Amino acid sequence: MKKIGIGIIGLGNIGSRFYKEIITNKREIGLKTGTNINIVGVSAKNINKKRNFKFQKKIFFKNPLDITKNPKVNIVIELIGLSDGISKKIVENALKNKKHVITANKALISKHGDYLSLLAEKNKVNLEFEASVCGGIPILRTLKDGLATNKINKVIGILNGTSNYILSEMEKSKNSFKKVLNKAQILGFAETNPQFDLDGNDVLAKIRILSALSFNNKISKSKCLMSGIENIELKDIDMANKLNLRIKLLGITEIINNKLFERVHPCLIKKDKYISNINGVMNAVILEGVPVGQSVLQGEGAGSGPTSSALLSDLLSILRGNIKYPFGISSNKRKNIKSYDKNLYSNSLYLRFEVKDKPGVLSEITKKLANFKISIERLIQIPDRKNKKASIVIITHKTNERNSTKCLQVFKKNKNIIKNPTLIRLF
Amino acid sequence: MKKIGIGIIGLGNIGSRFYKEIITNKREIGLKTGTNINIVGVSAKNINKKRNFKFQKKIFFKNPLDITKNPKVNIVIELIGLSDGISKKIVENALKNKKHVITANKALISKHGDYLSLLAEKNKVNLEFEASVCGGIPILRTLKDGLATNKINKVIGILNGTSNYILSEMEKSKNSFKKVLNKAQILGFAETNPQFDLDGNDVLAKIRILSALSFNNKISKSKCLMSGIENIELKDIDMANKLNLRIKLLGITEIINNKLFERVHPCLIKKDKYISNINGVMNAVILEGVPVGQSVLQGEGAGSGPTSSALLSDLLSILRGNIKYPFGISSNKRKNIKSYDKNLYSNSLYLRFEVKDKPGVLSEITKKLANFKISIERLIQIPDRKNKKASIVIITHKTNERNSTKCLQVFKKNKNIIKNPTLIRLF
Repeated sequence: MKKIGIGIIGLGNIGSRFYKEIITNKREIGLKTGTNINIVGVSAKNINKKRNFKFQKKIFFKNPLDITKNPKVNIVIELIGLSDGISKKIVENALKNKKHVITANKALISKHGDYLSLLAEKNKVNLEFEASVCGGIPILRTLKDGLATNKINKVIGILNGTSNYILSEMEKSKNSFKKVLNKAQILGFAETNPQFDLDGNDVLAKIRILSALSFNNKISKSKCLMSGIENIELKDIDMANKLNLRIKLLGITEIINNKLFERVHPCLIKKDKYISNINGVMNAVILEGVPVGQSVLQGEGAGSGPTSSALLSDLLSILRGNIKYPFGISSNKRKNIKSYDKNLYSNSLYLRFEVKDKPGVLSEITKKLANFKISIERLIQIPDRKNKKASIVIITHKTNERNSTKCLQVFKKNKNIIKNPTLIRLF
Repeated sequence: MKKIGIGIIGLGNIGSRFYKEIITNKREIGLKTGTNINIVGVSAKNINKKRNFKFQKKIFFKNPLDITKNPKVNIVIELIGLSDGISKKIVENALKNKKHVITANKALISKHGDYLSLLAEKNKVNLEFEASVCGGIPILRTLKDGLATNKINKVIGILNGTSNYILSEMEKSKNSFKKVLNKAQILGFAETNPQFDLDGNDVLAKIRILSALSFNNKISKSKCLMSGIENIELKDIDMANKLNLRIKLLGITEIINNKLFERVHPCLIKKDKYISNINGVMNAVILEGVPVGQSVLQGEGAGSGPTSSALLSDLLSILRGNIKYPFGISSNKRKNIKSYDKNLYSNSLYLRFEVKDKPGVLSEITKKLANFKISIERLIQIPDRKNKKASIVIITHKTNERNSTKCLQVFKKNKNIIKNPTLIRLF
């Protein structure tokens, strides 16, 4: 049995669970790979923090970079999670020192993945990051292996458990965004600072990784159509419900006329569609490819269990001795695909205006929309007489992003419109 | 670029599509694997059959076994599909001659998989069979790689597209089993002889392969709880509908008290459950594991596209140079897990009796059920006065298989009961 040393850097929720899973599964991993694995180094901010497992003090490294150059270490697991700084240094140094690297760090991979994968290839070691996208769904491995040589056309996903939990729970409990977010934080479904989960950045990072694996392109740096769920109110959830629709934060990437179109935004989806029935903290990915047709994968997206499952699968892949290109093909074969001009993207929109309840306001709005040739499919007005306000919900026919953005700009100057209109794209 | 010769045996629907996919994807496969692949041998019953592609006559082998010993051939693709006979010989000879083998043959693998995988290991070549279970869903690779080291507890699947299409279409069209089967045959969703698809044998073969990969056991040979969909009538579909249930043919494998329990039978499932909403020719697999939680995979199960996708993924796995154990771990580490006594399995049952419309018949039935301590949760009687008949549908409380089998035996002697009762287990 070949002896393999593992170094784990970061012993938070994920790192601790992974540590224990390795101990528990050591025998089975040995059976499956013919290796004798041992954790020979760990590093964390605080050696003395209370943890529900024990490790020998002699394997603790105060400076995590020391793990990356320790001759006993063959595989470095980076679980700190920064897009730059020490996380980047750890991965960089480990690869340069010919250590395999496993990371759950989507921020790092979506920003520096091209550079780091080249580094891994040069040093003939693996860089694995299955856990960076939908922990419980082996989506990267499915794209690299299970569906390899399929021509993927489109990927649609519910990729952020926090957002999906909040939207589901608002619908179920009829509680406000704020209240539900608070509950999510208590239950551990949202972080203390949930900004990246709510504003779409977390989904964008995952979508960029998925694009690279689906279309063999270098990770796109261009600005993407993105909005999060922070502006979704209970009113919108209710209205969607009445229209037999459901709001979901989707990440979508596809090739349109040989150009890459990545986007992240809430969508209004018919309730009978599969994707609108993925509720709570679940994640789901729909792949459309040739020859396979449509493939759907669903599972828990985050949490220490699903994430450990992904990390273990990366570990096994390395232990089985498969040196693989991190993105499925060699870096120099990966293409730069131009970005699709998001302004050309055309879609039906849901617009909610909060207005003063005064005569003429509605006609001001509809007139402006007409000026921009945005035609109305449906209009619903909900008065709030007590506060002399009203909500006006408009479902438009298709219009492109350039047009709708310009049009919504104009409303900013209108004093009868109390706040920026809420915009949700129809699926 | 390393030159690799491929031999394809069987040029039916799947073989033809796969042939074309290889030609189309040759360049991309080269990029991903650094190999130069060429089809150097094909074999089929009839060289002159009209095909929508052309091959050079000189690569045609009248005797498929000649392909398995041809020095130019490195990988043999077996697409004939028999559980024994020539299919077995081809795979056996190819492995003995140190050729990698890819097959879509679930009958062969579920019967001789243990022997053949040992043969592959001895000869240090790959035996890959992703296409044997749910073509469009990379489920075997997911178990071997993506969810590797998870402790899988239970696998539930809709694994037969033909059966699922028939059940869905009966519900949708309100047509009889026979009519819908006929339509399925015209559309190519059912074979001319669909027996194995309808009687559960096809699902059983897949379940046995899934068990072996999930639980690391040798393929079970013991008799399994199995029934197909041939006795499902439109009456049952309608009744299910009224009860807010849906009938699905499920394959289920799980470990109960360290014993293996494999079963294949129609189930009545609540309409709001995920699995009851997999319709038409779609397949789905639900995996429950630790630490991953629940994972769901859904995709097209059969057809030349999805099956080719699976074959291509096997091909890539081989070309990337990963010699792997066919069942994930070495044959001598695979366990013999004892079978759970299916007679102990306890469940609620749906029973439909077709009876003569005579006084006392109902009480005869309920009395017999009471004798066997089978208590009734719900009873629905549907008279058919014109024909002096009635249908009696009974939903029972939980009872075990031994008991229900004995009880149903007794009814056979009852002349007022026109035919064997239809039994469907509740999910």
